Amino acid sequence: MTRVHNFSAGPAALPLSVLEEIKNELPEYGDSGMSVMEMSHRSPAYQAIIEDAEATLRRVMGIPSNYRVLFLQGGATLQFAGIPMNLMRRGRCGHVVTGNFAKKAWQEAARYGDARVLASSEDTHFDRIPALDAVERACVDDDLDYVYICQNNTIFGTQFHTLPNCGDTPLVADVSSCFLSLPIDVERYGLIYAGAQKNAGAAGVTVVIVRDDLIGQSPANPYCPTYMDYRIQADKGSMYNTPNTFGIYVCGKIFRWIEETGGLVAMEQRNRAKANLLYNLLDNSKLFCGTAQKDSRSIANVTFRTPSKELDAEFIAGAAQRGIANIKGHRVAGGMRASIYNAVTLESVRALAAWMDEFESLHCMGQRSL
Amino acid sequence: MTRVHNFSAGPAALPLSVLEEIKNELPEYGDSGMSVMEMSHRSPAYQAIIEDAEATLRRVMGIPSNYRVLFLQGGATLQFAGIPMNLMRRGRCGHVVTGNFAKKAWQEAARYGDARVLASSEDTHFDRIPALDAVERACVDDDLDYVYICQNNTIFGTQFHTLPNCGDTPLVADVSSCFLSLPIDVERYGLIYAGAQKNAGAAGVTVVIVRDDLIGQSPANPYCPTYMDYRIQADKGSMYNTPNTFGIYVCGKIFRWIEETGGLVAMEQRNRAKANLLYNLLDNSKLFCGTAQKDSRSIANVTFRTPSKELDAEFIAGAAQRGIANIKGHRVAGGMRASIYNAVTLESVRALAAWMDEFESLHCMGQRSL
Repeated sequence: MTRVHNFSAGPAALPLSVLEEIKNELPEYGDSGMSVMEMSHRSPAYQAIIEDAEATLRRVMGIPSNYRVLFLQGGATLQFAGIPMNLMRRGRCGHVVTGNFAKKAWQEAARYGDARVLASSEDTHFDRIPALDAVERACVDDDLDYVYICQNNTIFGTQFHTLPNCGDTPLVADVSSCFLSLPIDVERYGLIYAGAQKNAGAAGVTVVIVRDDLIGQSPANPYCPTYMDYRIQADKGSMYNTPNTFGIYVCGKIFRWIEETGGLVAMEQRNRAKANLLYNLLDNSKLFCGTAQKDSRSIANVTFRTPSKELDAEFIAGAAQRGIANIKGHRVAGGMRASIYNAVTLESVRALAAWMDEFESLHCMGQRSL
Repeated sequence: MTRVHNFSAGPAALPLSVLEEIKNELPEYGDSGMSVMEMSHRSPAYQAIIEDAEATLRRVMGIPSNYRVLFLQGGATLQFAGIPMNLMRRGRCGHVVTGNFAKKAWQEAARYGDARVLASSEDTHFDRIPALDAVERACVDDDLDYVYICQNNTIFGTQFHTLPNCGDTPLVADVSSCFLSLPIDVERYGLIYAGAQKNAGAAGVTVVIVRDDLIGQSPANPYCPTYMDYRIQADKGSMYNTPNTFGIYVCGKIFRWIEETGGLVAMEQRNRAKANLLYNLLDNSKLFCGTAQKDSRSIANVTFRTPSKELDAEFIAGAAQRGIANIKGHRVAGGMRASIYNAVTLESVRALAAWMDEFESLHCMGQRSL
């Protein structure tokens, strides 16, 4: 079996070496006499696995000791509610709406209090990160519990390259699709969270990193399900109930792989090299064009299109024949999208670039022959 | 590597043949060129996996077409909130408190409305299923949205062998530790749910089976997170957001394994044979005694003890030396517990029984020599 070049936006490609390790640890993990899936989450063997996962993540990201790391379930979508239910103590927050999931997060927060849109790029179909002046003013004037951003917009291929200066107002960021793809300064944030299925592992785990003083002794909303109470989950080491044990094990392996292949500095270098290869090609193409404004381009999701839906479809079909999978854009954006997370190799990106070159040549020759 | 005899209460033993299949499908699943963990949940390959999982479960359990099957995350604990948030429309429900998780479910429901304890066995340390007359009267008199039971109590080793007659009041049951261990009549229930980590797969998936007319157009509680809105998850085929894709794949394999090894009738026969072997031994032992009252005994979790904590500890340590793992009772119950779910073989139960016989002989000889 040949592995395809997998550009899926998530669940997404994982490092082959990690998949081989997981395979080798079935049906038994080490000398435990059972697979990780069969281990009691309270057993010493499993405790070592989850503690190692957290410790590795703390080293890789440089997470300060006053931040708690939670491994939860329910995806980013459950956190859209969990964040206001835990943190919206005075009943007001500010949102920057830069894409589909940013908008959903704002809509969900608005069910729990006064969730204000401080900036949006919806007027230009989310092709950019908007100016953040209004965000910074609101942090001074509006007594906000927090400011919420989606740091990388998976569907539209945009990314914050500078963060708003929020002063003492905590910054909350959905970093799902840029998590672990480059170094970040955790102390700039009050809370960071990410679905694992892009850069951290398999779907079914959400990593929440939250500053300890923000989670208080009880959630802001009295109806917050106990499962989603950050204080309880933090105090119980993400084991208030049975966590996604296998999913956390996979995360731990990914964290190790990142550490052993150079850490976040190396991840960023490789990701920028992959992104630059594609963006340079787009900028020099007579057929393809990138859909995100240049200063807002994501290094994780490269969105582009041809002049017509028919050509897009032909390009995608031809890609599939060449073992280039999952480059169709999200249904709300159309066109193409190449998600080039950590585990997507430069070789895969080169294969995509080669097909783009070939497709452009074929198409231009076709035009000339008309 | 030798596999141990794994009596874990959950996450628990899985069939070796299923683990071997999962291993064989790494790093690539079929001709997809990627592992299941790397598949977009919207891809045709993954759609086939989740649809097959649901269809197999429907065949195995005989689920009527007016019941929806949801594959959610967050464990039973998140459903402790999800059930009242979705179903408590008139603000009143009745609970039968038969153990630790039954009590937690009641306490959580009480945060969302008038959750009444209709029957409890807490006065005898949860060693039995209490009489259900009061439950049946409340169904007639109290205008309840539903009656809630925990059908098998994992920690205390008790199980409902007859269900309360609730008339038109929907019966809601946490069946986590008896799910798929015997045939059940789904139509007796309004909602059944189970954490997967006992009989249905790996931790990180919760299967919810709910009668369509109960979930309405919107949840009962306006603060219900969208992720937990049963109507939305049902209408989106458990894909409102990215589900635990790998976990659902494992569930599907377990459902297939049950179907191919005789279905729920065969599961029940095998489970009763395993349980009878242990209960007969307990009833004829001069050293060990079962902790659940006889008419309430679980066929999934067999709880027992010796006359002293020291002997319990000696028995557990000796078991570990013989490859018999995870028979220590839950911390709130003490003693021993053998969880003998579907994937625990008769051979494993015989190994445990042999050690019990041996331990009893050793101990009685020791006593005689004093």
